[in-house]
Amino acid sequence: MAFLALGTVALDNVKTPSGVKKNMLGGSAAHFCMSARLFDDVHVAGIVGKDFPKMHLDFLKRKGINLSGLTISDGKTFRWTGEYKQEDLNSAITHATELGVLADYIPQITDQHRKMTHVFLANLAPSVQEKLLSMIAKPEFVGLDTMNLWINTALRDLKRLMKKVDLMILNDTEAKMLTGERNTVAAARVIRAMGPRIVVIKKGEHGVYVFGGDFQFGYPAYPVAKVVDPTGAGDTFAGGFFGYLAKARKTDQKTLRRAAVYGTVLASFNVEGFGMGKTAPLSMKEVDRRLKEYQAFCAF
Amino acid sequence: MAFLALGTVALDNVKTPSGVKKNMLGGSAAHFCMSARLFDDVHVAGIVGKDFPKMHLDFLKRKGINLSGLTISDGKTFRWTGEYKQEDLNSAITHATELGVLADYIPQITDQHRKMTHVFLANLAPSVQEKLLSMIAKPEFVGLDTMNLWINTALRDLKRLMKKVDLMILNDTEAKMLTGERNTVAAARVIRAMGPRIVVIKKGEHGVYVFGGDFQFGYPAYPVAKVVDPTGAGDTFAGGFFGYLAKARKTDQKTLRRAAVYGTVLASFNVEGFGMGKTAPLSMKEVDRRLKEYQAFCAF
Repeated sequence: MAFLALGTVALDNVKTPSGVKKNMLGGSAAHFCMSARLFDDVHVAGIVGKDFPKMHLDFLKRKGINLSGLTISDGKTFRWTGEYKQEDLNSAITHATELGVLADYIPQITDQHRKMTHVFLANLAPSVQEKLLSMIAKPEFVGLDTMNLWINTALRDLKRLMKKVDLMILNDTEAKMLTGERNTVAAARVIRAMGPRIVVIKKGEHGVYVFGGDFQFGYPAYPVAKVVDPTGAGDTFAGGFFGYLAKARKTDQKTLRRAAVYGTVLASFNVEGFGMGKTAPLSMKEVDRRLKEYQAFCAF
Repeated sequence: MAFLALGTVALDNVKTPSGVKKNMLGGSAAHFCMSARLFDDVHVAGIVGKDFPKMHLDFLKRKGINLSGLTISDGKTFRWTGEYKQEDLNSAITHATELGVLADYIPQITDQHRKMTHVFLANLAPSVQEKLLSMIAKPEFVGLDTMNLWINTALRDLKRLMKKVDLMILNDTEAKMLTGERNTVAAARVIRAMGPRIVVIKKGEHGVYVFGGDFQFGYPAYPVAKVVDPTGAGDTFAGGFFGYLAKARKTDQKTLRRAAVYGTVLASFNVEGFGMGKTAPLSMKEVDRRLKEYQAFCAF
């Protein structure tokens, strides 16, 4: 069954030690969907400007991503210009954020979307995430991602929203920032007490930890020998993770474990190329091949 | 069969967010042996001063650690005074290093030791590590640990020694420092080309990666909710890892995986208490209980 993902669809200018790329298709929802489409029928809710290349729209459609919730508005598409330095490929340095049409975005979704039960709120202002959630008739399983910016500037909104979601995915730095805890396990406990019953803490090249009520589990990252561009790795993880859950319509521990493994494998492809260079061409066959390798890597 | 571990036996003054402890039994060999003794008959090669408390000697003996290679010399025992701050419990801040008797240490070992085939060179000056190794008649499997200090001040010695060992254990920062590589996988490849056929990269709270000729594997750390004192965690890992291998007298991939799991579990106990507060009372029963929990944590 189809599910909905809200987030940014952006044009990215990225510089990494491997090179410079301009006007790449990017954004939290775009990366999320490029990964989630491998598992389930995913509909994107977001906004782009009239300047958004038709090429990118056609590309997303061709990949099976439903764009009926994508608003095309007068104005300019959201742009992110950032850089990763050799010393710390885990941390993006933002040079410019041009909100453009994102500044006044109010989600416009269809009746089909309103009836969907599974919704993922990829990184975006918490007020917009909450707005979209309020449009959903009977949400059954809602996932939430966020970023340091919102923890710093919209904490009240974020905390209110956290009470309404089932799952929260965030990275370890954000988890520590949000809770004031310095220990990942302790931070996850505090976050669970704030609302979401499942908390996923992404640790970039160090893998992922997942915390539920009566269980916790963790996996290392798939070992990538050369990171080309980490942009969107977290969204790609979330797309694989939530896409798998949405398809399964289950959130028991076993399903969550499988979902985390798929998220990890998808994220490993993401960092090996610029933008969606490595994730867009993927088939499930290639994903499952790496999953097998990864399984051998982690086996006891 | 018994094996030999060279390293420091020290008196530690440690400050962490959980408290301050003075004159604790510490040092690379002491932590290593406290972990390794659970698996095999371990003999320590090292030196202490006349000021070293008899209480500590008795304690080590009572734990089954053979002290016939421990020199007791005129002068003062090696002392380390350090601190861990809440912001980064992974990184020790050294306030003072008083070498004492360590400054002129030449290993004094017995004939039994010279005939041993399995030797672990825990953190110490590479020249002393090499000296000890030269005393071993027919080394079959030699493990090496080091630290940033030696990479900075004794790189030539270290590189020469690396050619003579089978296994090298180091942390990710040291691996990057030693190779100039920024990626863990790439760094491991370079280190293998420098000598050791097996390279273990410890990532502290982020687990461990192991690299061999035709295999690599990795595990996350056991999730510890409260880190009390990380001093010696790396040595404790190494003790579990090498102790298991020494006992098994095998270094095939399966054995190495099991060894890494034991090392991980032992290190998780280490950080939960000051000094050897949590590792010294351990029995294999408790270790295997946590191993089971850990196995469940990492299961797919």
